[in-house]
Amino acid sequence: MEEVEKMRHSLSHVLAAAVRELYPTTTFGIGPAIDNGFYYDIDFGDTKVSDTDLAKIEKKMRGIIARGCKMVRREASRKEALDWAKKNGQRFKTELISELPDGATITFYDLVDPKGEVLFTDLCKGPHIDNLKEVGAFQLQRVAGAYWRGDEKREMLTRIYGVAFATEDELKEYLKRQEEAKLRDHRRLGKELDLFCFSDLVGAGLPLFTPRGTVLREELTDLSFGLRGGAGFKKVWTPHITKVDLYKKSGHFAKFGDELFMVHSQVNGEEFALKPMNCPHHAQIFASRPRTYREMPVRYMEATTDYRDEKTGELGGLSRVRSLTQDDSHVFCRKDQIKDEIQTLVGIVRKLYTTVGMNKLRARLSYRDSSDKYLGDPELWKMAQAQIKEAAVENGLDYFEQEGEAAFYGPKIDFMAEDAIGREHQVATVQLDFVQPERFELEFVNEKGEKERPVMIHHATLGSIERFMSVFIEHTGGWFPLWCAPEQVRVLTVNDQVEDYVKEIEEVLGGVVLNEPVKNNELRFEIDRSDDSLGKKIKRATEMKIPVVLIVGPKDAEAREVSVRTREGEEKVKLAELEGWLMGKL
Amino acid sequence: MEEVEKMRHSLSHVLAAAVRELYPTTTFGIGPAIDNGFYYDIDFGDTKVSDTDLAKIEKKMRGIIARGCKMVRREASRKEALDWAKKNGQRFKTELISELPDGATITFYDLVDPKGEVLFTDLCKGPHIDNLKEVGAFQLQRVAGAYWRGDEKREMLTRIYGVAFATEDELKEYLKRQEEAKLRDHRRLGKELDLFCFSDLVGAGLPLFTPRGTVLREELTDLSFGLRGGAGFKKVWTPHITKVDLYKKSGHFAKFGDELFMVHSQVNGEEFALKPMNCPHHAQIFASRPRTYREMPVRYMEATTDYRDEKTGELGGLSRVRSLTQDDSHVFCRKDQIKDEIQTLVGIVRKLYTTVGMNKLRARLSYRDSSDKYLGDPELWKMAQAQIKEAAVENGLDYFEQEGEAAFYGPKIDFMAEDAIGREHQVATVQLDFVQPERFELEFVNEKGEKERPVMIHHATLGSIERFMSVFIEHTGGWFPLWCAPEQVRVLTVNDQVEDYVKEIEEVLGGVVLNEPVKNNELRFEIDRSDDSLGKKIKRATEMKIPVVLIVGPKDAEAREVSVRTREGEEKVKLAELEGWLMGKL
Repeated sequence: MEEVEKMRHSLSHVLAAAVRELYPTTTFGIGPAIDNGFYYDIDFGDTKVSDTDLAKIEKKMRGIIARGCKMVRREASRKEALDWAKKNGQRFKTELISELPDGATITFYDLVDPKGEVLFTDLCKGPHIDNLKEVGAFQLQRVAGAYWRGDEKREMLTRIYGVAFATEDELKEYLKRQEEAKLRDHRRLGKELDLFCFSDLVGAGLPLFTPRGTVLREELTDLSFGLRGGAGFKKVWTPHITKVDLYKKSGHFAKFGDELFMVHSQVNGEEFALKPMNCPHHAQIFASRPRTYREMPVRYMEATTDYRDEKTGELGGLSRVRSLTQDDSHVFCRKDQIKDEIQTLVGIVRKLYTTVGMNKLRARLSYRDSSDKYLGDPELWKMAQAQIKEAAVENGLDYFEQEGEAAFYGPKIDFMAEDAIGREHQVATVQLDFVQPERFELEFVNEKGEKERPVMIHHATLGSIERFMSVFIEHTGGWFPLWCAPEQVRVLTVNDQVEDYVKEIEEVLGGVVLNEPVKNNELRFEIDRSDDSLGKKIKRATEMKIPVVLIVGPKDAEAREVSVRTREGEEKVKLAELEGWLMGKL
Repeated sequence: MEEVEKMRHSLSHVLAAAVRELYPTTTFGIGPAIDNGFYYDIDFGDTKVSDTDLAKIEKKMRGIIARGCKMVRREASRKEALDWAKKNGQRFKTELISELPDGATITFYDLVDPKGEVLFTDLCKGPHIDNLKEVGAFQLQRVAGAYWRGDEKREMLTRIYGVAFATEDELKEYLKRQEEAKLRDHRRLGKELDLFCFSDLVGAGLPLFTPRGTVLREELTDLSFGLRGGAGFKKVWTPHITKVDLYKKSGHFAKFGDELFMVHSQVNGEEFALKPMNCPHHAQIFASRPRTYREMPVRYMEATTDYRDEKTGELGGLSRVRSLTQDDSHVFCRKDQIKDEIQTLVGIVRKLYTTVGMNKLRARLSYRDSSDKYLGDPELWKMAQAQIKEAAVENGLDYFEQEGEAAFYGPKIDFMAEDAIGREHQVATVQLDFVQPERFELEFVNEKGEKERPVMIHHATLGSIERFMSVFIEHTGGWFPLWCAPEQVRVLTVNDQVEDYVKEIEEVLGGVVLNEPVKNNELRFEIDRSDDSLGKKIKRATEMKIPVVLIVGPKDAEAREVSVRTREGEEKVKLAELEGWLMGKL
C-alpha cells in the first residue's frame, strides 16, 4: 500500500475518533481510504449531521492529531472481537465480525495518545501510519447518505467525505482543480447550454437530449463513424431487446445476468432482456449467410443504445447512465489479420482523440497470466499478445503492460485520455475475443474449401457516447470546437436598418459546408434579430458559448464586411472572404 | 353489406358443407368473409388436412354449387339453438350460443338443395345470397393454423382460406396480382438482396439489419429527416425505457397498458416500460425550460425505436415487428399556427411519396362526431377541423371525410399510398392533440406575459420505417432507385489487363456525391475483380439488382469509356462524362 493511502486510512480513524467525542452515541460502519481522500459511514441515530457540522468535526480532528497520537495494532480472537463490538453497541461491526471464519485472527487498531489513553478503537485490517503527526494535509468536504453495505434495503447511514494528500501543496492543487472542475461540471453546463435534461417521469440515468445536445451527440458519433467507415466498417442495426437465449449462448448471461434489465411480454409471457452490448447480435448477422475468405475481414459498426441496470445512487449526469450508446464495432477476421486490424483501430483512436483535442493518450496492454481462468488456445493468446505489442510499438503509443488483466476471452488494449485539467479518463478499447466465435460456431470457408473459425475484435472509439460527452463537455468547458458546436455562428444585428445586408450574409452562411473533420457538415447558424440592445445580444451569445459571433451594423453593411468575435478576439472580415475565414477556423 | 361480401360469406358455408361431407366427424369454429375471400376454422380431430387436400374439397364445393342450392334463413330460440349444437357435437357453437343473452333471437342458415334436402346448417347472423349459383368465382388457397378465438391458450384449429370475386375476370386479375406480389415478397427479397435477417436466439418480430439493409434504412430515414429539417424540425434523442409514470400521466397507460413491454430492474425492483411512442418524451423536453411565444412553434423529430408487444402469430417480415422505428415528429404550436403547420406537413408528405415513386395518395380526414368520447374544447375542434379541410383543399389532396373517426384527443389526416401493383397502404399521419398539453401542463408565455397552452401535432412521414421498407421493397420489387440503392454501381472487369483503367474509374466514382433527393450522398460502389467469367459477374450483379453496372474491357480502356448496363439497356459512356451521366439518372 502506498504511504498516502495509509495516511488517508488513518485519517478515517481520526474522523471517527472526533465524531465519537462530539457524538458519543454513534454507531460506526466502515471507513476506508479512497481516491484523493477517505470517508466514514456513521449512524448518528436521531441526530442530524450536515455540511455545517464539518468545521466542528474537522477542528476536533486537528486537535487529536496535534496531540501526537499513535496507531497501535493488536490481534484478537473472533470471540474477543465479538465481545468488544457487543459491549460497545457496535452492531455493524458485530455483523462484520460474525461473517469471519471461526478461527480467524482479527486485528484492531487503537488510537493512543502520548499519555497512553486509547481515544478510539476500530476493527481494521490496516495498515496505518504509526505517528498521526504524519497524516499530511486534509479537509472534510461533504456529508452524503449511503446504505449500509450499499444495499438499498438496509439502513441509510451518514457518510462524511474528506480529501487528503501528503503535502499542503498537493491538497491546494487538488482543491484548485476541484474548483475548476466545478465550473466545468457537465451537469451544470448541460443545463446552461441546453444540451440535455432529465425528467422524474422518465427516470434517473435516462437523459433526454434537446436539439442542441442531439447535434453534439451526432457530430461526435459521425466523427467516429466517419473514421471507421473509411477503414471498411459497415453500419448495421440491431434491436434493443433480445431473448435471453442469445446471452445464454454467448456466455454473458452466466457472468452478467443480474445486471440485465429484464423485459416481460404481457401478451404471451416471453422473457427478453434489454441488450447490454451488441457483440452477440453482430455475430448473428455474420452467421446469417455463408462466408468465404474473400470477404474477410467482415467489419460491422453500430451506435444503437445498450441498457445496463445501475443503482440509482451511482447515476450522475451523463457520466453514468442506464441508457448508454456505444460506438460499437466488431471485426471478424482470420488469425493472420489480427495485427493489421489492431493497427487500423489504434490509428483510428489516435486520430479521433487528436481531433477532439485530447492527444495525451496512454494505452494499457492487458495480457493473460498463468492461471487457468482464460479460455481459448494458449498459442493463439501468445501470438495475439505479440501482435498487440507490435501494434503499440509501431504506432509509438505511450503504453504499459499488465499481466493478468486480460478478459477471460482474450487480451486487450485500453486507452486513457487526459483532459484539459489533467484528469485521466478511460476511453477507447480494443479487445480480442477467441470465445464468442466458438460459442456461436462462426465460420468461413478458406482457400482450400475448409471451414475455418474467425477471431472477433471488439472495439469502441468513443466508448459510451454519453460518458464521452460528459468528458468532452468538461474538457472544453462548453466551448466546443467550431465543427461540433450545436450553434456554430450567431449573427447579431445592431439595428433593423441592416436587414437587407443580413439577408446577404444569411445566404452566404447557408451555402457553407464544412468538410473537416466530419464531412458534409452544413453550417449551423442563427440570427438574433430581437429588439434587445447589442450588449444584451453579445452577453446572451457569450453565455451560450457560441464559437463565432458576427456583429453587423450600418458601417459594416457599407464596407461589406462583418465584425467577427471569437474567444481569441475581434476582427473585421470581408463578406466575400467569410466562407474562407470559417474554413480556416477548423 | 356489399353483394360480394355476401357471396364470400355464403362460400364459407359451402366450404363447411363440403368439408362435412368429406370428413363427417369435424367440428366447426367460425367462417367469415374477409378481404378478397373467406375462411373457415375447423377441428379435423386426428385427421391431418393440408394444402394437398384442397383440390378435393374445392371439387366437392363446386358440386354443391352446381346443384343449385339455396341459403335459407330461420330463427330459433336460445334453447333450440343450444340443443342443436349439443346434439351435433358442435362444442364451439355451443360456446358461442351460451354467451348470447337469454332472450336473444338466434338465426340459422340452412343450405338446402333443390330437392329440399338440408346439406348443412350453421349458426349465422347472415346475410347471404339466396341462390348459390350466384356465388361468383373462387379458389381455395391454403391451410393454416389458428387458435380458437385467437387465444394462444385454446385449441389450434385448421383454417382453410379461399379467395372469391364476383366475376372470373376479377378473380384472374387478383391471382395475377398475387403472383406478382409473391415475386416481390419483401421477406424473400430481404434474403436474396441481403437486407435483413432474423435470429431464433434474438426472437420473432425483431429484425437485424445487415450492411445493405442499413444503408436503405438510413437513406429513407435521411430523406424524411431532410424534408422535415428543411421545415424547421430539430432532431432530439430520448431513451427507449421510461418509468410507467410517464404513460400514466399522458393517459396512454390506461388505454394501451397491456400492449407495453414491461421492464424490470433486478437491482432495485423499479418498473419501467419500453416506449411505444415518443410524444410524452418530447413533451418532457418542451417542458424542460420556460418557453416564450418568440420560439413557437417548437418542432422536434426523432427516429429512435419504439416497442410494441405483438402476438408472435401476427409477426411477418418487416410488415409487423415488435421493434418499430417511427420517423416521429411533434409540433408544439399556438392555435392560430395550426393551419400553417398542417400545410407544411402535407407538403412534406406529398414530396416524400412523389420522391419514392408512390404519388397516388389518398387522404382520410377524420373528425369527431356528436358523441361525448372526445376530450378538449369543442370550439377548438371545430376550428381545427376547418383548418385541416382547408389545408387538404388548398393542397389539392385526393381526400375523403369521416365523422367519428378522430382520435379522442383530436382530429387527424391519414394518408394512403398506392404501390406499383395497385395495393393501398396506410402510411403517413398528421394528428392534432388537445389533450397531452393539458395533461403535461405545457405552456409558453405570450406577448402579454400570460401563460398560454400550446396545441400538439403528431406526425410521421414514413410511419414505421420497418413497415415502410416492407412496402417500398415490394413496390420496387427490389430494384431500388439509384439514390437509395445499397450498392449503386458495380464495376465488372473483363480481365485483369484493365486494372490501371479500373483504378482511374475507381477514382472518378470515389469523387461522386449525389445531392438529390438526399444531400451529400457519397456514391456506393463495388468492383468485381474476381476470376469469374464476365457472364457470371453479370448474372451476380443482376441477381443483386444493382441499378448501374459498368463493364470494362480492353477496348473500353482504349476508348476511355465504359459500357453501362441498366434495366433500360446498355450504352457506352465516356469516362469524362460518367459523373454527369450518373447525376442525370437521379
